[in-house]
Amino acid sequence: MSIEFIDKGVCAPRGFQASGVHCGIRKNKTKKDLSLIVSDVVCNAAALCTQNKVKAAPVTVTQEHLKDGKARAIICNSGNANTCAPNGKEVARKTCELVAEELSASPDDLIVCSTGVIGMPLSIEPFERGIPKLVKKLSYDGSINAAAGIMTTDTIKKEFAVALNIGGKECSIGAIAKGSGMIHPNMATMLCFITTDIAITSEMLKKALSNDNLDTFNQLSVDGDTSTNDTVAIMANGLAGNTVIDSEGEDYDLFCKALNILNTAVVRALAKDGEGASKMLECTVFGAPDKETARIVSKAVITSSLFKAAMFGKDANWGRALCAMGYSDAVFDASNVDLVLSSAKGSEKVCEGSSYYDFNEENAVKILNEDEIKIQVFLNQGDAHATAWGCDLTYSYIKINGNYRS
Amino acid sequence: MSIEFIDKGVCAPRGFQASGVHCGIRKNKTKKDLSLIVSDVVCNAAALCTQNKVKAAPVTVTQEHLKDGKARAIICNSGNANTCAPNGKEVARKTCELVAEELSASPDDLIVCSTGVIGMPLSIEPFERGIPKLVKKLSYDGSINAAAGIMTTDTIKKEFAVALNIGGKECSIGAIAKGSGMIHPNMATMLCFITTDIAITSEMLKKALSNDNLDTFNQLSVDGDTSTNDTVAIMANGLAGNTVIDSEGEDYDLFCKALNILNTAVVRALAKDGEGASKMLECTVFGAPDKETARIVSKAVITSSLFKAAMFGKDANWGRALCAMGYSDAVFDASNVDLVLSSAKGSEKVCEGSSYYDFNEENAVKILNEDEIKIQVFLNQGDAHATAWGCDLTYSYIKINGNYRS
Repeated sequence: MSIEFIDKGVCAPRGFQASGVHCGIRKNKTKKDLSLIVSDVVCNAAALCTQNKVKAAPVTVTQEHLKDGKARAIICNSGNANTCAPNGKEVARKTCELVAEELSASPDDLIVCSTGVIGMPLSIEPFERGIPKLVKKLSYDGSINAAAGIMTTDTIKKEFAVALNIGGKECSIGAIAKGSGMIHPNMATMLCFITTDIAITSEMLKKALSNDNLDTFNQLSVDGDTSTNDTVAIMANGLAGNTVIDSEGEDYDLFCKALNILNTAVVRALAKDGEGASKMLECTVFGAPDKETARIVSKAVITSSLFKAAMFGKDANWGRALCAMGYSDAVFDASNVDLVLSSAKGSEKVCEGSSYYDFNEENAVKILNEDEIKIQVFLNQGDAHATAWGCDLTYSYIKINGNYRS
Repeated sequence: MSIEFIDKGVCAPRGFQASGVHCGIRKNKTKKDLSLIVSDVVCNAAALCTQNKVKAAPVTVTQEHLKDGKARAIICNSGNANTCAPNGKEVARKTCELVAEELSASPDDLIVCSTGVIGMPLSIEPFERGIPKLVKKLSYDGSINAAAGIMTTDTIKKEFAVALNIGGKECSIGAIAKGSGMIHPNMATMLCFITTDIAITSEMLKKALSNDNLDTFNQLSVDGDTSTNDTVAIMANGLAGNTVIDSEGEDYDLFCKALNILNTAVVRALAKDGEGASKMLECTVFGAPDKETARIVSKAVITSSLFKAAMFGKDANWGRALCAMGYSDAVFDASNVDLVLSSAKGSEKVCEGSSYYDFNEENAVKILNEDEIKIQVFLNQGDAHATAWGCDLTYSYIKINGNYRS
């Protein structure tokens, strides 16, 4: 059994086309602002959406459309979050109708998403102009264009795909995603669209996505702000021809493993490209009494503004990590914690038994000079472990967010 | 009945002396790093301490010493948090003994606090050197020196006092406090030392302080990080000669009101001087279904990194405030919220019915150009209201915290 990274993002699985165009929601004409992913056939589908009480209109419409566990396409705009817009639901519904008409599909089989500024009016006009063009440009190599059309403050397009073999059939799972601020997922996160040609029921899809989410998207934080538009959606068109996965077992486990590898790659890319980030932070908590404690503690460390600022400053101020663990909601013994900082340049223990440890400051600075920093936390009270991903807090984060709307 | 601000901070109440000196915990000899507040007589006393699971050694020692509700003095150092230091409790206890010996007091009647870097070894030597000098410098005008000795990244000394009349007796309550990072109190906060000459039992003191804390210190956030050293302590020496307050009633209510006025002034000063702050943010939520909802919602707004960065950028990006309210733990209807921004330069409604409102951007920028910004939130679903205080997120916050230890 091997799971390997391959090219072509959401178009890696058989029977998926994608495209991205500029339709005029953004003023900058060189920036794509509308993306489409379409399966040749109707898919089993599932989505996790934001737990924020203030929900974008398309989130509500998508949840309605996915009640039957079926979808054919994902349409997404950037440049306007369609949140708190007076005509939001009307625009989201009309968008689905326009796409459905072009594809000869049912509007109910559309997943619709938006990302961008909250609270701005949104007109249907750019969608009317853009959708025919978008459909015309659909291509089995179009993943990269769709990845571009959903970007906001992202600096890097995020597309990944993995290949695996299920019951003798070559299958794949692909994804595109966008960050990069307002990232502190609560049950679901930002936008990530996943496609697969694996045959699997929508119930098992939902189960796999929900479970995996606990260890991937939910373990990511850029700035502690849970978005109003968070959506992770997955569509499985079954074109790989494997025996349909309709219960737990070997095939399901393999699917979950591949999904986890894919989503972990997405989450790492989102953390690395967090708004203003100069460093990716990966905190793994070992020796926790249970998995949930390990998740909470690791996430508290990478969410702390003080610890993030220290990492930006290459300052091995481990007390801030311990402080963040201490104020987290997790229940654990905070008196016997060891902390190790590491990167491509080596590793250094900086705290032992929750206490001062005479570490080599020079080596610590050398380690923290790298752009991927691992923080290993040993709680020494059990066997559970979990990882969380984030980034440092930099001048650029403030520059980006001091004037986001202009 | 009138409650008026007066001078002299913790030395405003009768029978309280204070002092601050440099004893050598900090390298910079011009910076005071040790403070003392002493009552002429033993006081009834109470304290609220951090809920962080990682607790500073002096927090534990103070909690032991306050079990009998009595205290005579408060000793506090800056420059080292005495948290995760291997000999932490030993140093904290020995510090109390040294002060007690000089004052001919019982070590159990000492409140001991520390603030500064977490996880650094701390020697008793600077205390041995500094305490005799500190006691010699005690003065009934020494509040400002004690306020200086507890500062870390604070740029302004924080001392306040109010005068009131209880049962025909002139009384007063005074306070000194320090911020200014790792401020997101959980049941208690940073360091604030309060003195009063009012006669009141330690039970009623604790009750008054705990209740008031919910609307003052607990409603403050600079960076979302709950400190390991948070302590608000109060000492009442009874020298005003009023009939002792030992139950609820008119005198207790008046004391609570004066305490609230004092603590609100302290909290506003802490928010204004938050690390790197260029603006103080005051968010008041009106029309909430209950008080706790109003508290949670107002605090979520002033804690959001994205909203804080927008305020720094003078950007009326109200969607971020609504987003933060939405992801808070509060249970409320998020569909009919109005938002008004105001400052000394006027006010502007920016959101109505949780939806886009065609506001005057030019006027909004003029308002946000000021250094005290009020955010008024109308939930329109009840009669409860509450306020929270914070500050903007600036380049300076990152500069300060990128290299705090050096």
